[in-house]
Amino acid sequence: MALDIEILDTTLRDGAQGEGIVFSVGDKLAVAEALDELGIAWIEAGNPGSNPKDKEFFRRSRSLQLKNARLCAFGATRKKGIKAADDKQVQSLLDAQTEAVVIFGKSWDLHVNKVLRVELEENIDMIAETVAFLKKQGRQVFYDAEHFFDGWAANPAYALSTVKAAWNAGADMLVLCDTNGGVFPDAVAAGVKAVAQMIPGAGLGIHAHNDSGLALANTIGAVQEGCIHVQGTLVGFGERCGNTSLAALIPSIELKMGLRCLPEGNLSRLLELTRRVAEIANVSLNDDMPYVGMHAFAHKAGMHADGILKTRQSFEHVDPAAVGNTRHFLMSEVGGRAAIADRINNIDKTINKNHPVTIKLADKIKNLEAQGWSYEGADASFELLVRRELASMEGRSRHKPLFRIVAYRVISEHPTGKTLACSHAWVKVLVGGQHEIAAAEGEGPVNALDSALRRALLRFFPDLAKVRLDDYKVRVIDGNATAARVRVLIQTTDGRHSWSTVGVSADIIDASRAALVDSIEYYLLKNREQGTGGRDQ
Amino acid sequence: MALDIEILDTTLRDGAQGEGIVFSVGDKLAVAEALDELGIAWIEAGNPGSNPKDKEFFRRSRSLQLKNARLCAFGATRKKGIKAADDKQVQSLLDAQTEAVVIFGKSWDLHVNKVLRVELEENIDMIAETVAFLKKQGRQVFYDAEHFFDGWAANPAYALSTVKAAWNAGADMLVLCDTNGGVFPDAVAAGVKAVAQMIPGAGLGIHAHNDSGLALANTIGAVQEGCIHVQGTLVGFGERCGNTSLAALIPSIELKMGLRCLPEGNLSRLLELTRRVAEIANVSLNDDMPYVGMHAFAHKAGMHADGILKTRQSFEHVDPAAVGNTRHFLMSEVGGRAAIADRINNIDKTINKNHPVTIKLADKIKNLEAQGWSYEGADASFELLVRRELASMEGRSRHKPLFRIVAYRVISEHPTGKTLACSHAWVKVLVGGQHEIAAAEGEGPVNALDSALRRALLRFFPDLAKVRLDDYKVRVIDGNATAARVRVLIQTTDGRHSWSTVGVSADIIDASRAALVDSIEYYLLKNREQGTGGRDQ
Repeated sequence: MALDIEILDTTLRDGAQGEGIVFSVGDKLAVAEALDELGIAWIEAGNPGSNPKDKEFFRRSRSLQLKNARLCAFGATRKKGIKAADDKQVQSLLDAQTEAVVIFGKSWDLHVNKVLRVELEENIDMIAETVAFLKKQGRQVFYDAEHFFDGWAANPAYALSTVKAAWNAGADMLVLCDTNGGVFPDAVAAGVKAVAQMIPGAGLGIHAHNDSGLALANTIGAVQEGCIHVQGTLVGFGERCGNTSLAALIPSIELKMGLRCLPEGNLSRLLELTRRVAEIANVSLNDDMPYVGMHAFAHKAGMHADGILKTRQSFEHVDPAAVGNTRHFLMSEVGGRAAIADRINNIDKTINKNHPVTIKLADKIKNLEAQGWSYEGADASFELLVRRELASMEGRSRHKPLFRIVAYRVISEHPTGKTLACSHAWVKVLVGGQHEIAAAEGEGPVNALDSALRRALLRFFPDLAKVRLDDYKVRVIDGNATAARVRVLIQTTDGRHSWSTVGVSADIIDASRAALVDSIEYYLLKNREQGTGGRDQ
Repeated sequence: MALDIEILDTTLRDGAQGEGIVFSVGDKLAVAEALDELGIAWIEAGNPGSNPKDKEFFRRSRSLQLKNARLCAFGATRKKGIKAADDKQVQSLLDAQTEAVVIFGKSWDLHVNKVLRVELEENIDMIAETVAFLKKQGRQVFYDAEHFFDGWAANPAYALSTVKAAWNAGADMLVLCDTNGGVFPDAVAAGVKAVAQMIPGAGLGIHAHNDSGLALANTIGAVQEGCIHVQGTLVGFGERCGNTSLAALIPSIELKMGLRCLPEGNLSRLLELTRRVAEIANVSLNDDMPYVGMHAFAHKAGMHADGILKTRQSFEHVDPAAVGNTRHFLMSEVGGRAAIADRINNIDKTINKNHPVTIKLADKIKNLEAQGWSYEGADASFELLVRRELASMEGRSRHKPLFRIVAYRVISEHPTGKTLACSHAWVKVLVGGQHEIAAAEGEGPVNALDSALRRALLRFFPDLAKVRLDDYKVRVIDGNATAARVRVLIQTTDGRHSWSTVGVSADIIDASRAALVDSIEYYLLKNREQGTGGRDQ
């Protein structure tokens, strides 16, 4: 089925120009596969003329089995004073053996005069001859008009003449670029309109940067003005503040504009594949990213949770499932009883938001939060809190702790004559009437306590062997310097599932102990109840 | 001087609804002071009717000495079926004793029917009566038309009638909200235009959310259509994907639209104060944030660096200095050494950026930063590093440590039969050939170590009695759970001056020890050299 908008992802080229983004050739192949799985039409995969790694990528890419995507090589117009056929950089674009080639040329007279340092006429020849040469070699040619909007503002006639030259030389697509990311949506729309009027029927594209936080708006505006080709990077990687994030753009195009840019059914894999590309780049997705961020459908205010439970669209602009995301309610002082009841319902369906248990728990959470506890990032601790409360309030025996720490001692020391600090711990636990004691060394006191606790419990719970800590976070709450209270957040995994717990104390060891105990208790409980070590992520 | 646009920052209210954002009352006061320093006109500081912490904030806020900003309390229209004067929540807004009050009401018939569950007419009465009541009590009233744009799309006549009711009842400002963050810029512009046509001369405002990545564009578009009041949060905190980031918006308004929204000269402090607010929330600024991100003016591609060196605006949409940011070229040490030489000059005026000491220190800092050290927030540690390096490289005797920790042991335990954890420490120090040993208990292991160290040193340095820790922060650097490296930042004061130090280790005790030792050493050094305990803040 034909797409309305063709997407070109430049994660592997412009994205690789982002600070902190370093791809190996293997990484690049893995990114290309992920983009293909999502159904991206074009992958701009590198600049073979400037970068030996990219040359190797194109060689190895021939063994990729792509279902949806086609590759492009990226480069510049020919150098001044030589023929395109004699320009090594242009030749490297052909050597990449891609179906399409993207070349950029200068639209802004300032760049032609001060950066390129050629005559304005010569620049136009460089554009026209390079496009014509690549067309003659059988390539599709996407012409990137670098700094088009800045150029159009400075010298409209010249900027228009550069894209006209590319079109007349046979370019398949004129891609108007906001290279510096400083242009407003009204100016982008006007620029697109000017080119469309000058060359009726030309294929137009847009390439935006996010230096003013307007890349998405500029891209959407350009599509509304008739652009059919959109460039960006899935996660938003790119020079400085990055390129248009395709993960944030594609749902708006498909769900709100009713235009198709992915094969049918693929949109729901957006979150999974965006995470995968971020993983490959070893970058965490921003939690507040539109559509695919962890917080994109997280509701904290009590009134919002209450509204959502009455009617979904009251506080959700789209259905989170459409992009593979999920809604969640944060447990917090600004959150309300409706959200708490919703969570209690996972354990007991009969309890609503006006039930005494819910009211008591809401109060308890408010008090705990005033002391520095926070259940927002600690779902497993929250569930244990609910279970303990249910058991204590109703005399039911829902919650039986499977183990108890009877005593522990953690020692951190800097022994005379040694330069390295050293920590060790012992822990005594009680499990079903039996005591066990274990000791361990560690990198720091918390690590030592964690190791000793696991050792002591392993005799009773061999399934703990699979469990490991994924993340450990410390937050100092409020002043009072070294006597301040700290909040420890722990994320734990058994390889398949992952869950998070919290502990608060003036003593970092004690706060860590609370979070560790919750983490292990939650796992053991779930494993015994459902044969699973946690909730699905 | 009159401002063209009045900015309302809601970090303390809508921002606090962001996942992971938890402010203590002390944090809230510190955020208010930072926003005031920047020159924000209005601070929406909390919801006193829903939250005891916010009530306390308003009580304590009366002692704030604000130069530019005024506070607003935030709440809802009255409940159905009662008078505004009898509504406790409305009363709490008056009790907050702020000059202005922001109240939100429903514009979307779906919300009135399904969430509020009142008749459409009753909702209009609730809006009008609440506004009129608050006006009668002498408050400025900003009316937030929640979900205005969604309501206007669903039932334009009804949505318009709700804002008209607020205006007729005396509201000072009609703030049109894209509460769900799903509306496109063209629809926002059309909605603003519709209200402006219906109520000529009305004061109009905009409040946008970023669920589609369009908050900034929607806000800029609304200002272009005549809105004079803009709501957002400095860093962009807020429900789900956050609110309009004012740090990303303000430079566009001032530098590109030529409209004034801060007092003259304040824009250059934008980066510093945005970082400060993020610090208080214990959140890292996204590096790719427009204008204030670490990467916003970072150039990686060789062609870009080359272009910039030929003419600044070739790859920069604004001058980074305008917002207090700096340009940097990745892989370049030029900027780094100039800054280091600048600091060395405080100790030795003869050393420039090409001096071997500077080059060696630049290398050393690079290595230390790769291990997780960061001197950005630790001036005193940086100065000690420079002094130690100067002494060791040149055989000069500039740096003599006044004391040394020979050994320490910190014990944290949970004794059998007691419920409270307990930490104690002993420390042995060497001062001018003499040993001293001291022990102390503490709230947590770091506090115990700190107390024991001071006791041991006090015999030799009685001036230490004045010194106390002001702030203690822990950041976990990179994964590996409980064995992760941590960075400890300490701020210390002698009542007149204040200075900050850093320590890094896999062991939190050891990292704290390093920062504590630097802190005490710096104080003793300065006190002996200049008769002062630190530098002025």
